[in-house]
Amino acid sequence: MADLYLALLHHPVLDKNGLIVTSAVTNMDVHDIARSARTYGVRGFYVATPVKTLHALVAKIIEHWATGYGSTYNETRKDALALVRLATDLDDVIISVEREAGARPVVIATSARPGPSRVGFSQLRRKLEESPEPHLLLFGTGWGLAPVILDRVDALLEPVVGPSDYNHLSVRSAAAVILDRLRAPR
Amino acid sequence: MADLYLALLHHPVLDKNGLIVTSAVTNMDVHDIARSARTYGVRGFYVATPVKTLHALVAKIIEHWATGYGSTYNETRKDALALVRLATDLDDVIISVEREAGARPVVIATSARPGPSRVGFSQLRRKLEESPEPHLLLFGTGWGLAPVILDRVDALLEPVVGPSDYNHLSVRSAAAVILDRLRAPR
Repeated sequence: MADLYLALLHHPVLDKNGLIVTSAVTNMDVHDIARSARTYGVRGFYVATPVKTLHALVAKIIEHWATGYGSTYNETRKDALALVRLATDLDDVIISVEREAGARPVVIATSARPGPSRVGFSQLRRKLEESPEPHLLLFGTGWGLAPVILDRVDALLEPVVGPSDYNHLSVRSAAAVILDRLRAPR
Repeated sequence: MADLYLALLHHPVLDKNGLIVTSAVTNMDVHDIARSARTYGVRGFYVATPVKTLHALVAKIIEHWATGYGSTYNETRKDALALVRLATDLDDVIISVEREAGARPVVIATSARPGPSRVGFSQLRRKLEESPEPHLLLFGTGWGLAPVILDRVDALLEPVVGPSDYNHLSVRSAAAVILDRLRAPR
């Protein structure tokens, strides 16, 4: 079974007009995705932003739940947030995973947009079950990962679609659904 | 295909010590679950709280995105929030669904706790595909729906489990995963 890592990138991501921006770190993203990561056996969840002030914010969230008041108030939250790591950008994440897992991870981007040559959920699920290589799944905030990120990954995962034509899940919800499809016992 | 409705109950729910409380309405719950509901073809999403001040808050959120600044800033959010309805409690929700769908809904509670006689995901998925009856799926905030609710529903859905023993998804993530398991095209 491949070691699975997640990264939530806050730069470079798109805004609603397709411009490249740096989005703000959202407290709820860190909590929700950490809890999903913990549920589905993820090894580490990277919150990546080049903004140093936001590193301080995330560090404060983690500290509150790891050793502060939150650690005794809610132990399950402490368990989940123990998976959270701070990073500057994608390169920083890849280096950190490689250092921990002993090999450069296979990097897979998620996107709500359909397109050519997407890897399917069942195909990636099988690969995660069989591969000895670490895998890193990327999520974008804002209106999604910038093309410069999509162009350099090893694969793009097919979008989550429901029975409607609406494809605007929150990144928190999308991360939970994607992990469930890739990792829930069957 | 059964018409599917969701309700997020803020009372009676449990706190971390198992006491019955009324939880506060969280802005992010309304947004995220509305977006998941829209994605998975849900007919209506009830936000139920007996606290009238919180009705005013939710009404304000909906108004902002339906006709206020948000409606032009982000049309996809408007689409999702159009599914949101305010209610006082479970009875209020049931009456509203019955009025719209023409029949009393089959009420199914979700819970993160395992227990006897839970209906499985594939069983409920099949029932939703085949049944002409409306179905109402209940989600609890806080530490989950109070026993007085669980005791009066038609069925309890099995909990979402991953490959770990950790079962503390946020209600936003759990709702997305449950809808995906019940309604995603296969």
